[in-house]
Amino acid sequence: MTITFREAEPRDVAAIVAMLADDMLGAARETVSDPPDPRYFAGLEAIRANPHDHLILAEQDGEVVACAQLTFLHGLSRQGAVRALIEGVRVASSARGGGIGAELVAHLVAMAREGGAAMVQLTSDKSRTRAHAFYERLGFKGTHLGMKLDLTGG
Amino acid sequence: MTITFREAEPRDVAAIVAMLADDMLGAARETVSDPPDPRYFAGLEAIRANPHDHLILAEQDGEVVACAQLTFLHGLSRQGAVRALIEGVRVASSARGGGIGAELVAHLVAMAREGGAAMVQLTSDKSRTRAHAFYERLGFKGTHLGMKLDLTGG
Repeated sequence: MTITFREAEPRDVAAIVAMLADDMLGAARETVSDPPDPRYFAGLEAIRANPHDHLILAEQDGEVVACAQLTFLHGLSRQGAVRALIEGVRVASSARGGGIGAELVAHLVAMAREGGAAMVQLTSDKSRTRAHAFYERLGFKGTHLGMKLDLTGG
Repeated sequence: MTITFREAEPRDVAAIVAMLADDMLGAARETVSDPPDPRYFAGLEAIRANPHDHLILAEQDGEVVACAQLTFLHGLSRQGAVRALIEGVRVASSARGGGIGAELVAHLVAMAREGGAAMVQLTSDKSRTRAHAFYERLGFKGTHLGMKLDLTGG
């Protein structure tokens, strides 16, 4: 059971959307259709066009079983430190409990380190307490409050 | 007392570093020198080279009094929604208490909306309780835990 990692391509969009929707919070937010909604392809194209942005897939036996996004952020704070942002970590429900999520996050952390990042950051909904424990086991510290402003309401 | 906003340029680096260092958490993290450390200029150049990234300054009477960074993030989640990330909001100590921070954040939120973002997100150190109340007054909701992994330790 070897897990391999690669950048997402347009042919992967249906599998990625299925994973995004197969989640307690994602189910209400995503649109699952065949073919997938064009907005998902546009999102992937924007990521692929940005050299600082990576949508990474984990494959097991030739099948996509997890995804996550890694974005390098440049800035002046902390003496011009580069930071890496992890977003949208999802493991297919059929593949959960086998350590794939931890392997995927470890792969992203290695990518961040190779890319010169001084820090990796992420936010996780306060209701995802199991995810918080998962990230703490990987060395993350929950030092910050994550705040969001919805612009779609009005 | 009109406040104007513009993108940061290399000539602003010293003023920006002074604001980053003039902060309870930033004081220990930054290096203040004349001329500024080259890493700060490199950080600004990386922002200026990225069309999704903006370091915005607030000016009052021709003087830089606040800064903040706005980065557009593309993704597949939420039907390919674009999000905007706010980082490094700092107001010069001499200019605090006059509402400049709120005007600056409102300007960034307007930029995010014009750029097609569905959401604005930020994280704030848990110790910055006054900042949390400030963002709540602007409509942000503290729904997430912000987690960080330091890669500089070993």
